[in-house]
Amino acid sequence: MYRNFTELLARGPSRPARLVIAGAAETKTLRAVAKSVREGLTGTTLVGDKNALTALLKENDLFDEDLAIRHATTPKEICEAACEEVLLSGGFLMKGLVETADLIQAILRRREQMLEGTLISHISLLELPYRDRLFGLSDTSVVISPDIDQKTEIIRAAVQFWNRMGCSCPKVAVLAAVEKVSSKMRDTLDARELSGRWHAGQIPGCVVEGPLSLDLAIDPAAATIKRYAGAVRGDADLLLAPDLTAGNLLGKCFNYTPGSRFAGFLLGTKMPVVLTSRASSLENKLLSIQVGACIQERRTYA
Amino acid sequence: MYRNFTELLARGPSRPARLVIAGAAETKTLRAVAKSVREGLTGTTLVGDKNALTALLKENDLFDEDLAIRHATTPKEICEAACEEVLLSGGFLMKGLVETADLIQAILRRREQMLEGTLISHISLLELPYRDRLFGLSDTSVVISPDIDQKTEIIRAAVQFWNRMGCSCPKVAVLAAVEKVSSKMRDTLDARELSGRWHAGQIPGCVVEGPLSLDLAIDPAAATIKRYAGAVRGDADLLLAPDLTAGNLLGKCFNYTPGSRFAGFLLGTKMPVVLTSRASSLENKLLSIQVGACIQERRTYA
Repeated sequence: MYRNFTELLARGPSRPARLVIAGAAETKTLRAVAKSVREGLTGTTLVGDKNALTALLKENDLFDEDLAIRHATTPKEICEAACEEVLLSGGFLMKGLVETADLIQAILRRREQMLEGTLISHISLLELPYRDRLFGLSDTSVVISPDIDQKTEIIRAAVQFWNRMGCSCPKVAVLAAVEKVSSKMRDTLDARELSGRWHAGQIPGCVVEGPLSLDLAIDPAAATIKRYAGAVRGDADLLLAPDLTAGNLLGKCFNYTPGSRFAGFLLGTKMPVVLTSRASSLENKLLSIQVGACIQERRTYA
Repeated sequence: MYRNFTELLARGPSRPARLVIAGAAETKTLRAVAKSVREGLTGTTLVGDKNALTALLKENDLFDEDLAIRHATTPKEICEAACEEVLLSGGFLMKGLVETADLIQAILRRREQMLEGTLISHISLLELPYRDRLFGLSDTSVVISPDIDQKTEIIRAAVQFWNRMGCSCPKVAVLAAVEKVSSKMRDTLDARELSGRWHAGQIPGCVVEGPLSLDLAIDPAAATIKRYAGAVRGDADLLLAPDLTAGNLLGKCFNYTPGSRFAGFLLGTKMPVVLTSRASSLENKLLSIQVGACIQERRTYA
């Protein structure tokens, strides 16, 4: 495990990775990309309307940067072209100004080449000023109301992602409001079942515990006060949210914590796919690109 | 609206309110209570096992404080006795080491004298270092999966609570993962319906908007970036969570934000009922007592 992003990036890529942006005509994304190119991290292909992109590059004084442009106009064309480019270049992908659903459709049309799992989901990597470890939160962005099999698949994909960052055996906390199983709260029943599947060896390469309240998952002191005897005990590497709405609210709350940093990726793909939100800061977009380049270079993706 | 708790408490009670603790044999609660008595805020009745309480008071050097004890042993007896005491004294109530469900049962058995709404729920009052206003979050603790009528009732009770703090017309944000209504996400449909009920005049004394993502609810800058044109625009006074699990995770995340402060109360009761969690800090327990005393003195409760 890494204590923070700085530690993760210290083992950064030794040569530029190739980055393709689907829907690049957006100022914060362009600035983040230009910065990563200047830092020698990535060579980049911007996919989008050539005129709009050219104008935006001039406007932002980025016209002389080493950025290739592939012209495409409709959202569907942009996503198709971006997937083509990423497969041609062996690089990684970033969602810009397109809908997540459109990008996922384009990836699913190239299932064999781009997917390795059976489900596309999302992981937010988070650094918080009050935690001594980088951790992941899934799923805040893609799977609205995962059933128990989908939750299993999300954990598997997140564990694989974690392994690719160079961390073995992450501790997974299946979140709920309380740590007691109650038939009135489906989340707690799901959590018990997931924990059972892990015990039965169906979710290898990690530890899965739940239901866990947020404090037991992220706060060792609270785990001591509550006399919680499990393995996670405030040290969770991965938080599995009960559903997208809860995950999304929690993820945004973490992001608003002063001093926090964030990077976002799809799970279930063969190459890193950076996915941050419209409202994400330039710093978090750049961080996501840097982490993507790092993981891409390790070439542990199939 | 108040910018923070300090501003709210500056208008604090001019004479001691009477506080009754249901299940007082818990160190942090006792210390918080003793401090509030020393500050002249409350006169207090501790309900619980007399021997255990006496031992704990001695252990914590609190034996000479002006604290009355009412002996009761089983959880049910403790909750019954605490409700009796609160009605006799005209004071307010605090949950100590008893289950929330037991306390609510005792309150419901005195429905006429203790309830004013049709539903008991919960509000967390929160102060965050990055927001310039005190705000409420409901329901993180009582109603597991509120239907649309229960959500309406929670908003009504929260608005009443808000009014009693001396604030008129709070802005209510009905939270969801996104600000677009989608038939795939029940939360967004509920939010539209609640907003519709407000437009129809069924939820008076406030503004209700939704569905709203967390950033549109609490961050004016994000509202500007996303060109959100509603009335809330990052300035929500009350956040309505989609369900208890989402609310609970969000509330705990707010609580972990360094520099945040928190006070918790039941909604729907005729007198303040302080309800914080086992893991709440001494500071937050004391803050909850102080706010409770403040609201109690204003005697705007029926």
